[in-house]
Amino acid sequence: AGPARPARLGLCAACHGETGIAQMAGAPNLAGQRLDYLRAALAQYRDGRRNVAVMRAAIGPVSDAELDALARWYSVQSPAAAQAQP
Amino acid sequence: AGPARPARLGLCAACHGETGIAQMAGAPNLAGQRLDYLRAALAQYRDGRRNVAVMRAAIGPVSDAELDALARWYSVQSPAAAQAQP
Repeated sequence: AGPARPARLGLCAACHGETGIAQMAGAPNLAGQRLDYLRAALAQYRDGRRNVAVMRAAIGPVSDAELDALARWYSVQSPAAAQAQP
Repeated sequence: AGPARPARLGLCAACHGETGIAQMAGAPNLAGQRLDYLRAALAQYRDGRRNVAVMRAAIGPVSDAELDALARWYSVQSPAAAQAQP
């Protein structure tokens, strides 16, 4: 079994989908992305090195532990379904 | 048939793999990533909004047309194989 569904998943899923298939133009697929990369990207959105207002706002109230649970969730989702989407 | 193999593919493949499955810690998988996101990310690496020296150096000598060919290449690769890699 993979990781438990993170409590804060809904916050991410609006744009990235529950399984990491993007639901919105401009948002990347996250399914199956490397965990180290997801962790680094989240740290960069948090501290502003990646200056993206929507991401900074979204993760602002999320604890580091919750954020890591979300990164782990997406890293183990199957990326296969991504191919069907433009 | 998908897009022709881009002339500059080797520049990206050292870290991201020829088919977008990352070969190096810290590098993201690109296979099947959304084209709009890849284009935006490349523009950000180019102009420094994403301040990542290795990416800025790598794409410095690559023309916009070549860069777009690379984004299109990776966006149509199958992401399925990514799942097998940590």
